[in-house]
Amino acid sequence: METIILELYEIGAVKFGEFTLKSGINSPIYVDLRLIISYPDLLRRIAEQMWHKIKDLSFDRLCGVPYTALPIATALSLTHDLPMIMPRKEVKTYGTKRAVEGVFRKKERCLIIEDLITSGASILETLEKLTDVGLDVQDIVTLLDREGGGKPKLEGLGYAVHPLITLTEMLTTLLEAEKITQETVSSVLTFIEENRC
Amino acid sequence: METIILELYEIGAVKFGEFTLKSGINSPIYVDLRLIISYPDLLRRIAEQMWHKIKDLSFDRLCGVPYTALPIATALSLTHDLPMIMPRKEVKTYGTKRAVEGVFRKKERCLIIEDLITSGASILETLEKLTDVGLDVQDIVTLLDREGGGKPKLEGLGYAVHPLITLTEMLTTLLEAEKITQETVSSVLTFIEENRC
Repeated sequence: METIILELYEIGAVKFGEFTLKSGINSPIYVDLRLIISYPDLLRRIAEQMWHKIKDLSFDRLCGVPYTALPIATALSLTHDLPMIMPRKEVKTYGTKRAVEGVFRKKERCLIIEDLITSGASILETLEKLTDVGLDVQDIVTLLDREGGGKPKLEGLGYAVHPLITLTEMLTTLLEAEKITQETVSSVLTFIEENRC
Repeated sequence: METIILELYEIGAVKFGEFTLKSGINSPIYVDLRLIISYPDLLRRIAEQMWHKIKDLSFDRLCGVPYTALPIATALSLTHDLPMIMPRKEVKTYGTKRAVEGVFRKKERCLIIEDLITSGASILETLEKLTDVGLDVQDIVTLLDREGGGKPKLEGLGYAVHPLITLTEMLTTLLEAEKITQETVSSVLTFIEENRC
């Protein structure tokens, strides 16, 4: 996982400094995992590592969440012959649009693939779309757990959350590799603690 | 291409009968290519066939258009190490959201991967997003050309459009395989002719 963390840092998918989030809050860390779509080799290795997390789980369909997790789920789908479904991002506006695209039957179990979990709010929206059409969800796999309170919240609701990388692990790895200072680590951990949902 | 056409028919990605489109018009054909995400083997073979269309074109980035074309572009990206970018479907609502995700530089050339071209309206929106951020587009590759006027319109604007399958080719193949009748073929061709933009 160390290589993936360092590469995410190198491509600028995680940055340290002063950032103003859409909420208006100032953050010492900025995460933009969407950049991984421009690095096919990294995308492939992320999917390979995710495979180790999912291969022993029981599920009928992979659920790739647009936008960034959809390419990750596609990589897993193609490499391991796993049928995929996809919840649409926008709200349904007219009859022909379905909230969940692809082929599935009610009561089938789907495994959610996400790129990032922070507070869990976005996952809860996805869960609603999936359960509304009769699908069952047990497990959620995410590339990064930003440790913003989402994992314990979802686990409290009965879901199992499997992060490939946790924010703490990312900070530790980058500190050991001398990419960031102890001061940065502390300021990020303080920020995360203070903004946990 | 015959196998892919027959498989698209078998999975119900193209249907014949009476359908009311979102415009209120009654159509004798219904195309739902989004189903391919649930058939990884078919998705892989579609991407392989697309590779033959794109391998001699000159471009710096693949542009995968959400939703259905994004998994096709991802398959090409992973198999042939092609960096990808992605225009967002929704309108920008706040500062941190970019209209085009991924890494690129101005004046780079990107190749648009689409699943379906009908009138070309959706492609024109994508082209606007890409040119707005300084990207250059020369070629558009699509899984299906529904022959609704989009190809000549885009070619008139100077773009080259490369369909993997045309509607006429699809109808001919399905007729020869005795999946549809000559009467169906005629009614679809009449419908397309009358509704061309």
